[in-house]
Amino acid sequence: MLLSKLVCERTKEAPQDAKILSHILLVRAGFIKQVAGGIYTMTTPCQKMSRKIQDIIRQEMDAIDGQEVLFPVVMPREMWESSGRYNSIGSEMVRFKDRCDRDMLLGMTHEEAAVHLANHIVDSYTQLPMMIYQIQTKFRDEARSRGGLIRVREFTMKDAYSFHATQEDLEQYYQRVYDAYYRIFRRIGLNNFIDFKSDTGMMGGSVAHEYMLLTDAGEDSLVLCNHCDYRANMEVADSVLEIADYPQAALEEVFTGDDKTIDEVCNRLGVDRKQTAKAVVYAVKGDSDKVVIAFVRGDLEVNEAKLKKVLRQDVVAYEGGVSSDVVCGNIGPYGLSDKITVVYDTSLRGTHGLVVGANRPQYHYVGFDMAREMGDVEFHDIHKVKAGDKCPICGGDLRIENGIEIGNIFQLGTKYTKAMGMTVHGADGESFNPIMGCYGIGVGRAIASVAQESNDERGLILPMSVAPWQVHICALRMDNEEVATKAWQLYETLTKAGVEVLFDERNVGAGVKFADADLMGMPIRVVVSPKSLACGQIEITLRATKESEMVAYDDCLAKVQAIIAAEMTKYQG
Amino acid sequence: MLLSKLVCERTKEAPQDAKILSHILLVRAGFIKQVAGGIYTMTTPCQKMSRKIQDIIRQEMDAIDGQEVLFPVVMPREMWESSGRYNSIGSEMVRFKDRCDRDMLLGMTHEEAAVHLANHIVDSYTQLPMMIYQIQTKFRDEARSRGGLIRVREFTMKDAYSFHATQEDLEQYYQRVYDAYYRIFRRIGLNNFIDFKSDTGMMGGSVAHEYMLLTDAGEDSLVLCNHCDYRANMEVADSVLEIADYPQAALEEVFTGDDKTIDEVCNRLGVDRKQTAKAVVYAVKGDSDKVVIAFVRGDLEVNEAKLKKVLRQDVVAYEGGVSSDVVCGNIGPYGLSDKITVVYDTSLRGTHGLVVGANRPQYHYVGFDMAREMGDVEFHDIHKVKAGDKCPICGGDLRIENGIEIGNIFQLGTKYTKAMGMTVHGADGESFNPIMGCYGIGVGRAIASVAQESNDERGLILPMSVAPWQVHICALRMDNEEVATKAWQLYETLTKAGVEVLFDERNVGAGVKFADADLMGMPIRVVVSPKSLACGQIEITLRATKESEMVAYDDCLAKVQAIIAAEMTKYQG
Repeated sequence: MLLSKLVCERTKEAPQDAKILSHILLVRAGFIKQVAGGIYTMTTPCQKMSRKIQDIIRQEMDAIDGQEVLFPVVMPREMWESSGRYNSIGSEMVRFKDRCDRDMLLGMTHEEAAVHLANHIVDSYTQLPMMIYQIQTKFRDEARSRGGLIRVREFTMKDAYSFHATQEDLEQYYQRVYDAYYRIFRRIGLNNFIDFKSDTGMMGGSVAHEYMLLTDAGEDSLVLCNHCDYRANMEVADSVLEIADYPQAALEEVFTGDDKTIDEVCNRLGVDRKQTAKAVVYAVKGDSDKVVIAFVRGDLEVNEAKLKKVLRQDVVAYEGGVSSDVVCGNIGPYGLSDKITVVYDTSLRGTHGLVVGANRPQYHYVGFDMAREMGDVEFHDIHKVKAGDKCPICGGDLRIENGIEIGNIFQLGTKYTKAMGMTVHGADGESFNPIMGCYGIGVGRAIASVAQESNDERGLILPMSVAPWQVHICALRMDNEEVATKAWQLYETLTKAGVEVLFDERNVGAGVKFADADLMGMPIRVVVSPKSLACGQIEITLRATKESEMVAYDDCLAKVQAIIAAEMTKYQG
Repeated sequence: MLLSKLVCERTKEAPQDAKILSHILLVRAGFIKQVAGGIYTMTTPCQKMSRKIQDIIRQEMDAIDGQEVLFPVVMPREMWESSGRYNSIGSEMVRFKDRCDRDMLLGMTHEEAAVHLANHIVDSYTQLPMMIYQIQTKFRDEARSRGGLIRVREFTMKDAYSFHATQEDLEQYYQRVYDAYYRIFRRIGLNNFIDFKSDTGMMGGSVAHEYMLLTDAGEDSLVLCNHCDYRANMEVADSVLEIADYPQAALEEVFTGDDKTIDEVCNRLGVDRKQTAKAVVYAVKGDSDKVVIAFVRGDLEVNEAKLKKVLRQDVVAYEGGVSSDVVCGNIGPYGLSDKITVVYDTSLRGTHGLVVGANRPQYHYVGFDMAREMGDVEFHDIHKVKAGDKCPICGGDLRIENGIEIGNIFQLGTKYTKAMGMTVHGADGESFNPIMGCYGIGVGRAIASVAQESNDERGLILPMSVAPWQVHICALRMDNEEVATKAWQLYETLTKAGVEVLFDERNVGAGVKFADADLMGMPIRVVVSPKSLACGQIEITLRATKESEMVAYDDCLAKVQAIIAAEMTKYQG
């Protein structure tokens, strides 16, 4: 490929809205061009990189007996009504009417289409397990697309669906996918990633894992143990609570005036935050009259993902003015209106001597005893883990990191096969609903992740396994006849030998050429210049390490091939 | 691949609505599964075939200096308003509002996206010519999707866009694409196809060619000369008119009563249809008050595509009841209301002695003389060519055939670059609007075309170049230990050697296995049976020719490789 002809416009300026490094670099290197919010065109180098990543994904999916199919982007309402998701998914799903006034939608995920196909194909348990996957365009109308290819509205995704006769079989297969995902991410050149147990969210099901690239730019909070392997997404992370034991006392109402926050009340009464119970008020989403109050120990925060799972309902921060049933700032468990749904965090189990709201203005209780005052209530883990909390496995210190989700795998159970009436004949002649798993990787986000992890102040540093070209030839002084002849010859020799070469054959200065080469990040740079050719040599530099070596012109192909082979061993999965 | 595990359900029954052979066969062989009208899921064999076709397309596009990019499926209204097509394209384009109430659309074609990208990248004429292409999902809300993958609403398409500094450069490049398309279609195994000059339709521009698979199932009418190379889509086809010379006579009104059709009037007056002028009434689409009357010689039909091109407006059959300006059944050129737009066909140029309507009930004129009565009017070719008409090149007989469009190429001119304000600096320092070409091939339709052309009463006959698997092993009596062992061994030997093998390892009868193999159409069938193994042999049969040969078991790999190599020479482009 000749750089002068390449469909790729490099710039010095980063886009104004770009805050994340991968976004800045992919735009500056000319890999992507925005069309609308969260919608991009991929230029030649980016599409080449995308196809290399897709090929790696295909190989690994095929290696675990996956079969590639292609589901449609546009699906009819009826198919999604049969799973119940036509109504349960909100405005992130695009719906439209076709020319015959039928309701259609754009697929964000394809469980329904997978069951529709599998139901047609699978009659007998002997055909299981079966895994089908596709690599296809999806559209998800994200409220806040951001970060270039990190969070977009339109994206290319590999999504896979497996069907099983037993939970045990699903679990075995799930482990194969789990391992395949590690191979995929290592093969595309990612290093600093790790998997996390995660919330199953709108997908349904129970067990799920997310693969996270650890980076400050990530929008997911992740909990990791400094001492053992424990790790979990904040949404589902546990920690061991240090139980603070305060003296038992009689329940007594005390005047606290206008002090409403935990800190104000603690100051006035001279108690520690741990000796209080905090009330956080929510409303059920779409029904602001349904108030939910979550009680956690005063030093903790509510983990809304956990709370929603307990409630099996979506909730939003309470904004409905002052409800007649609650006295904001003085809310407590004791004497609260029974119209309100209450959830107690495990941090309050067995506590006594607490300060809690008295449910009337300007008063709190002291000496609150959870069991004595409230009786036999249920407790749920609905608090957020904090840095420094103790690991639930080994008791070590936990830390919090940020991450970008680069893939996810779910054990779905029978949610979709049941809802859509997919049954299969079992060995015993009885029919059953197959158990499903589903497994996703976003291709664009994989590109962004590589860019996010692998770069320096000059630009991208692309791994040999996914770089659009393996070699970037910079010919300095193309107006020099020898340079021109030798550079063209080298380009042809390498290309003919199957090496992927980007050839900067422009008649511009060395500074421009090197800046472009560094920005675009191909792994091997070959410099052809009058100076080096005077010694019959060219210069080979590795983008990643900046190591340079002078090599005899005639040895260039052999040297480049040796470097490629050596580099590729790093990306074996 | 094991047949028992294959995601592909074969059936004996054709779908009720399937009339076209390719539709019947692709459904029966389990290659496609309908999701909604004109929307299909592609199963494993179909997706494998699709990817082989895509790879061939990619190779040929890259060979003519194309660069693969990826445009978005979803685009914003503003982009399409800048070309004027947001409003000019009708309900076949899906429009929807995103969650922020912005107007979005699903791309049916990507001229706008291509100009948006090219405008960002190209500053100077030295960067031209440039060709970008993508292989991407498109959605076109067809009123009448039909024929399986022949006419669908959602499809995978290769669309390419080239940019040029001069018309001459476009024409040279257009010829390269023209040739590349022949190579692509030959490589995927099509034989009975041909290119046609075509109407440029909604794409704009002037010169265009369609590649047509000749088949009775086609919905396009094509005009071909029996003697020379002349060929054209009916929409733009010419023929030499035989001029019928009738005696000159005076214009005279005659009573024709309730006779209104050409035949009735001819019968009453004892004249030939060629001695009459036929009036066909249209209304401008979207404005039923604007009446257009097309006059053609009585033995001819109006070619609406040609008429629309003359008018530069879309027209529909006139249905607005009886206009006060026209007397239906008695319409003639002479004395017609001047509110009406009139178009005369070239078949009426210089005619005299004609019978025409008198524009009053129950009367016609005889002795009508075109020049004498109407003066110096313009004539346009707006008639349809008929079988038996004379070729405009050699005068030979023309015939009409049906065809399926399998690809198209357009010289677009500057329509889009002008409208969207794309300018480039020329050699003279002046800036100019680049001249564009665009070039499309539908991947699904290519699959359907192969199925349509290459089959027999038993099923598909897939070309070696695009068949999902090269070899289909039928192991008869898998309950026989020797068969099972030898068949598995053969499967592994072939697969390890890089041969693509579908292995029917089911324990079912020979009839079922052969029927499936014939239906699915892999090029080479290898039968392993107790009988053949008794002689140390297996049987190799070619699906296309039914030629069979007994081959020593140990020679099977070599024989298969030889057949594959020989077959592939047929698909070199």
